[in-house]
Amino acid sequence: MRILGIDPGSLVTGYGVVERRGAGLHHIAHGTLRQSRAAPLATRLAAIHAGIVAVIESHRPTRVVVEKVFVAANPRAALVLGQARGVALAAAAAAGLCVDELSPQAVKLAVAGTGAAHKLQVQRMVQRLLALEVAPAPDAADALAAALCAAQQSRRLGFAVGEIAASRTLRRARRPRGTARAGRFVLRRIR
Amino acid sequence: MRILGIDPGSLVTGYGVVERRGAGLHHIAHGTLRQSRAAPLATRLAAIHAGIVAVIESHRPTRVVVEKVFVAANPRAALVLGQARGVALAAAAAAGLCVDELSPQAVKLAVAGTGAAHKLQVQRMVQRLLALEVAPAPDAADALAAALCAAQQSRRLGFAVGEIAASRTLRRARRPRGTARAGRFVLRRIR
Repeated sequence: MRILGIDPGSLVTGYGVVERRGAGLHHIAHGTLRQSRAAPLATRLAAIHAGIVAVIESHRPTRVVVEKVFVAANPRAALVLGQARGVALAAAAAAGLCVDELSPQAVKLAVAGTGAAHKLQVQRMVQRLLALEVAPAPDAADALAAALCAAQQSRRLGFAVGEIAASRTLRRARRPRGTARAGRFVLRRIR
Repeated sequence: MRILGIDPGSLVTGYGVVERRGAGLHHIAHGTLRQSRAAPLATRLAAIHAGIVAVIESHRPTRVVVEKVFVAANPRAALVLGQARGVALAAAAAAGLCVDELSPQAVKLAVAGTGAAHKLQVQRMVQRLLALEVAPAPDAADALAAALCAAQQSRRLGFAVGEIAASRTLRRARRPRGTARAGRFVLRRIR
């Protein structure tokens, strides 16, 4: 199972690809699609679409995941985000991929042990969980976090029965931060 | 000059193609791309993208126009609209087309003589201006209205110098409704 997480944005779209092999979660790729503020809106959106198509062609994910939007921001920001999000979702669906949505809280809880984790905490935990040499950029880290969360959930939901107890990598990585209790809570809740 | 107007929506996206030949504005095509409410969001967005790509391939417009969004609605509605709008814009830009935005007021003023025209009025005026046998559906009428407005503006902005006085079709169509004054105001203002 190979999962592509996308964190869409009109200027920076983050992506991250994670693969689950048995009990292990492995990093495949991550990056950002950056658009020039000077480019016309439609051109930027076409570039995001083409970029996601290229990522899918290169890394052949079997599932795509994005964060749900609980719009707290103003309608203008929601429109701008919607436009970038729309092209990312359309590119994924056009490739025949199922797109799941996860709440930002669930994603943060899954990787950092708390639904209120800040950006830097998510970056550090993603780096640790995937044994990356350098912490990914914030948007790529969010995308990887979404992919990690989806991978964990798919395991718990019985895609690979019997592997639940084997998620040692994740639990070991969480423990030194003192977040094991929160991590277990997630497991209980989602099971 | 052949202009494609698009009125994006997550469930119904209207489109309309208008051609300017000399002083005349001619109807080429119009229609709606309808999505099932039951289909997953990403699938609907991919279908809108594919639909706009197909319309562009069939009718080969030289320009694309959409209405500007002055978001009065709530953030949730803005997000949903943004997603549909994003894929329409991306499809147009990917085809190498320039996308212009027009205010809804300018579009209504151009076709109905008042920026406060209601849906039915726009439908009727678009039917009359393009000599259609049947009034187009509301979303297709809005798309045709945007294309008509863009065609009028392009003429005024000097794309075809000397043709300004020749827009008889449009002016004749507007007069019987007693909207000539408003119509002339538009002309003055945009020149």
